[in-house]
Amino acid sequence: MIRILITGGTFDKRYDEISARLHFTESHVPDMLKLGRSRVDVAIRTVMLVDSLDMTDADRALIAENCAQAPEPRIVVTHGTDTMVETARTIAERARDKTVVLTGAMVPYAFGSSDGLFNLGSALSFAQVLPPGVYVAMNGRYFPYDRVRKNTKTGAFEETGESGAGD
Amino acid sequence: MIRILITGGTFDKRYDEISARLHFTESHVPDMLKLGRSRVDVAIRTVMLVDSLDMTDADRALIAENCAQAPEPRIVVTHGTDTMVETARTIAERARDKTVVLTGAMVPYAFGSSDGLFNLGSALSFAQVLPPGVYVAMNGRYFPYDRVRKNTKTGAFEETGESGAGD
Amino acid sequence: MIRILITGGTFDKRYDEISARLHFTESHVPDMLKLGRSRVDVAIRTVMLVDSLDMTDADRALIAENCAQAPEPRIVVTHGTDTMVETARTIAERARDKTVVLTGAMVPYAFGSSDGLFNLGSALSFAQVLPPGVYVAMNGRYFPYDRVRKNTKTGAFEETGESGAGD
Amino acid sequence: MIRILITGGTFDKRYDEISARLHFTESHVPDMLKLGRSRVDVAIRTVMLVDSLDMTDADRALIAENCAQAPEPRIVVTHGTDTMVETARTIAERARDKTVVLTGAMVPYAFGSSDGLFNLGSALSFAQVLPPGVYVAMNGRYFPYDRVRKNTKTGAFEETGESGAGD
Repeated sequence: MIRILITGGTFDKRYDEISARLHFTESHVPDMLKLGRSRVDVAIRTVMLVDSLDMTDADRALIAENCAQAPEPRIVVTHGTDTMVETARTIAERARDKTVVLTGAMVPYAFGSSDGLFNLGSALSFAQVLPPGVYVAMNGRYFPYDRVRKNTKTGAFEETGESGAGD
Repeated sequence: MIRILITGGTFDKRYDEISARLHFTESHVPDMLKLGRSRVDVAIRTVMLVDSLDMTDADRALIAENCAQAPEPRIVVTHGTDTMVETARTIAERARDKTVVLTGAMVPYAFGSSDGLFNLGSALSFAQVLPPGVYVAMNGRYFPYDRVRKNTKTGAFEETGESGAGD
Repeated sequence: MIRILITGGTFDKRYDEISARLHFTESHVPDMLKLGRSRVDVAIRTVMLVDSLDMTDADRALIAENCAQAPEPRIVVTHGTDTMVETARTIAERARDKTVVLTGAMVPYAFGSSDGLFNLGSALSFAQVLPPGVYVAMNGRYFPYDRVRKNTKTGAFEETGESGAGD
Repeated sequence: MIRILITGGTFDKRYDEISARLHFTESHVPDMLKLGRSRVDVAIRTVMLVDSLDMTDADRALIAENCAQAPEPRIVVTHGTDTMVETARTIAERARDKTVVLTGAMVPYAFGSSDGLFNLGSALSFAQVLPPGVYVAMNGRYFPYDRVRKNTKTGAFEETGESGAGD
């Protein structure tokens, strides 16, 4: 069984037609798994629904705590892309004995042009086969948490080439 | 680099509004990779565009030959679901030293409710990390080619539990 | 109030992922009106759900009878495009004192590329303002029933230019 | 021939995945007409692409001037919903000898759940048959410009019941 921890991010944003703003109501992850005809055994928990730019240290600690205490050894975390790498580092401090894969989306799933479904299929797959460690799965690729950054100009994730630990 | 071999299947069917029939024109895979913001290095080849119920032994031999001769050690094959397992077996006879992942879709990508994007993200991810062998990636899971069957009632892929070789 | 009579057609076809065929389950019209944020007062009745190529004379008589007996003076009929003009003629024989607008779609609403929502918005609007008579509303235009034909090559509706009665 | 004047509004907003904001690049109207298989003879002009909350008196004067000077007697104006009624009044001062229909959308066309295609089909249809006057076409209905208001709580347009001139 795989644990899915939902934290919000672009992935789950919706357009509120009265205020004309993007907001959160509930996660699309269950609908996405249904659309993907997923038969992976999962346990889903919505930890929070926030924009990752608004995440506090306490939020990150809470997510890491959820990873550490989950009974499942394999975890997918949906997360905003802007601070995904920062949260990955926090998780690595507390739950590096598990396989934790963070993913997100550049465009809300509710909008037609989202990469969300592709990314969820990807993250769920990497989570089933990668050895223990904390990873970011974006753009069809996976990166160890300490060798990745988001290129803020292109929006793509890329290797830093400045890994410390060697993994 | 990953080789993607396109063979058709529901995945790539389109609705022809003049004849009111499903048909093939060209593959959606490049559009899907773009939508997924994929940055995986891939080489795409359209081997054929056929319904897998119409595939002949010669077609399967051709697909297997393409797997065997591809310079890349990791391959994704898009394929109709009805005879995916049969083609997987043919590939396993000729290219078992490579990691070959077959995937497809229950609903054409061009229709809103397709599982195709989820499956492509999944297959591409499994292809990057699984050891050499031939696999089917559907429903978010992966199966060795000799332990899987399509449940024709539910449309889902499941383990046969009757593996011979142990793989 | 406007009466909406549903008869099937491409408009309402769905893709059955087990049989890989197009079929009917229930009409999309209520969902489409919701998506269009329609606040037109409507009474919807599903008369049948058939491919218009399979319609019999008895089917057409039943549709015409529903038009004649509806208490509302303004009616929209959703219908397959192939024999839409034929049914329009049958309706004109029995209910020419009402404003009846037939519409349909070239691609099923459930598929992303459908003209259905555009056509429904169009037909519902024409039905509110055209004088009594039987019309086909397709391609953003409206045509009196006796001056229109479907161009089977382009799929578009066009004036016949060979009107008999002068309407 | 019908003149279509594009002014922006929610209708044409897009999601910019780098800045995570809604913005304008170019209008979706040509794509929407293609999707609707429209064969209405139209001349399209993009007058501006702005949020209607940001529209100035000069902007409204420019739109009205475009209506007055267009050679076509029938005009559709795409516009943000928040100040659509205000612009309709300005147009009515200068071009009341023409049939001018304003429409818009509650959700951007680029997002799956938009009412835009329904509204465009509706507005284009009303523009073909309504007598000279300035109208708002939303929610499948049409309203003379001086008897309509947007209900800011529900997002729907409704009659004011406080018509002055009687139209």
